[in-house]
Amino acid sequence: MKIAFVGLGTMGAPMVRRLLGAGFEVTVHNRTRAKEEPLAAAGAQRAATPREAAAGAEVACTIVNDAPDVRQVVLGPDGLAEGLAPGGVVLDMSTIAPAAARDLAAELRARDLDFVDAPCSGGSEGAQRGTLSFMVGADPETLARVRPLLEAMGSSVTRVGEVGAGQLCKAVNQVIIAGTYASVAEGLALAMASGIDAEAALEAISGGAAGSWGLVHRGPNMLKGRYPLGFRARLHRKDLGIALDAAREAGVPLPLAAWVEQLETGLIRRGYGDEDVSAIARVAREAAGIDRPGVRADDDPDRT
Amino acid sequence: MKIAFVGLGTMGAPMVRRLLGAGFEVTVHNRTRAKEEPLAAAGAQRAATPREAAAGAEVACTIVNDAPDVRQVVLGPDGLAEGLAPGGVVLDMSTIAPAAARDLAAELRARDLDFVDAPCSGGSEGAQRGTLSFMVGADPETLARVRPLLEAMGSSVTRVGEVGAGQLCKAVNQVIIAGTYASVAEGLALAMASGIDAEAALEAISGGAAGSWGLVHRGPNMLKGRYPLGFRARLHRKDLGIALDAAREAGVPLPLAAWVEQLETGLIRRGYGDEDVSAIARVAREAAGIDRPGVRADDDPDRT
Repeated sequence: MKIAFVGLGTMGAPMVRRLLGAGFEVTVHNRTRAKEEPLAAAGAQRAATPREAAAGAEVACTIVNDAPDVRQVVLGPDGLAEGLAPGGVVLDMSTIAPAAARDLAAELRARDLDFVDAPCSGGSEGAQRGTLSFMVGADPETLARVRPLLEAMGSSVTRVGEVGAGQLCKAVNQVIIAGTYASVAEGLALAMASGIDAEAALEAISGGAAGSWGLVHRGPNMLKGRYPLGFRARLHRKDLGIALDAAREAGVPLPLAAWVEQLETGLIRRGYGDEDVSAIARVAREAAGIDRPGVRADDDPDRT
Repeated sequence: MKIAFVGLGTMGAPMVRRLLGAGFEVTVHNRTRAKEEPLAAAGAQRAATPREAAAGAEVACTIVNDAPDVRQVVLGPDGLAEGLAPGGVVLDMSTIAPAAARDLAAELRARDLDFVDAPCSGGSEGAQRGTLSFMVGADPETLARVRPLLEAMGSSVTRVGEVGAGQLCKAVNQVIIAGTYASVAEGLALAMASGIDAEAALEAISGGAAGSWGLVHRGPNMLKGRYPLGFRARLHRKDLGIALDAAREAGVPLPLAAWVEQLETGLIRRGYGDEDVSAIARVAREAAGIDRPGVRADDDPDRT
């Protein structure tokens, strides 16, 4: 199958490699064109514009930063919609607002093009290994057409409803990460500040009802005050903003997610936005006097 | 080894059965004496008082409701301390304040008796299966003496520090459960209220960074508005109270746990204290308009 792929960042580039490995004919385009080069060396075709990339393709994939970028790439001048033949599908894997996804789908439908929102979780590591989880909003027939692509890039493909539902599911995912990480951070701050063997405590509770991916995979570094990527705090805050807007629209209060979004806003202002989202532990550690505010734990000469 | 065991509730009774099964000679006592009978039928000796149960025993086990009960059973008239010979060990598996555990240990030490705090997680199911996780505060030598008992009752025994540290670890456990369950409830309320396939969404996100024991094991019932035990909300609030007191003493703020404790207080007043702690989902569901306040989801005639 011939496909177009626009957006060759830390997620997109390894996803293209997975598609090439699975035998798809991929034509790539990226705003910073140099990023196309390593993929061309791996077997992709290059195109000067999204429209050119989409010429002759059955499916056009996008994974870019936010809704205006998706709109530009899909519906802008020289966009994918101009290159796709009628009946083509736009498969957007960016994380954008559910309403933006529905708007895009409506505009594409008017041009006899289909749309699938398939945001994913699993990060750049999941993209490299092909173990992403896709949360899909689409009618079942359209999903069936793009499923082989999604299965080449991920290990889990779940349809959660019509267009926009994938983005809502991603919002749910980010909301739960927010509170789960914050509670892990709070509990571990208590462990550290109260003088017990915090590493042993983490191990003792990981297998029980307090257990979570965040506790097991981010807890040990939270205890050290280190927050290597992972997933950037500033991107998580962007996603929480989408979730909070969508929830407000649905009339759903999210007090926990709103609180974490506020804490992340402070962390980003202080220069920690490119740390992993588990840097939320800075807040609990500083509040408990484990770190001095403004001092990175690993740089603090007074740290004992 | 000859041991005494006081407290034959939903945890204590199956723990005694595990000890008998492992070949220990167990003498039991319970305030409501009739609860001794099925264990006597299973091979335990009975005693009229804690003191009598402890006569000739090397280790005296306790698992009762709270610190005053532990003190009464251990140090009160006809208490375990009067029956144990010098060098004996009190092994308390109740969840009480770390300071109360340290006080007990100090008073017992004055009588040439040792003390171990070993609160556990895993619930009545874990007690029955012998899969409890024990969080232990004790000096290593004393732990070594009681380890065979703990290993007969649980699958994990972790020393986290000196006396009191086990209780602090249990506090950390309950703090993390509080925020994790609350964030799962909040995310799932968004999923339900926004019209996506919430069960599919739960499955899509369970394996990733949003995953937790609470999401996997309590999420499906939260979606149904059902909260079978598990662990009672009123007992979890009791434990959060201990955690908040201990944290205040250590100077550690726990805003998330404090917030959940407040929500649980309201749930208990409304008659939901004997539901599972996952009933915290009632708050998020009602706030999102999924349930009507005061109406149990499964009784609501207007529920669609």
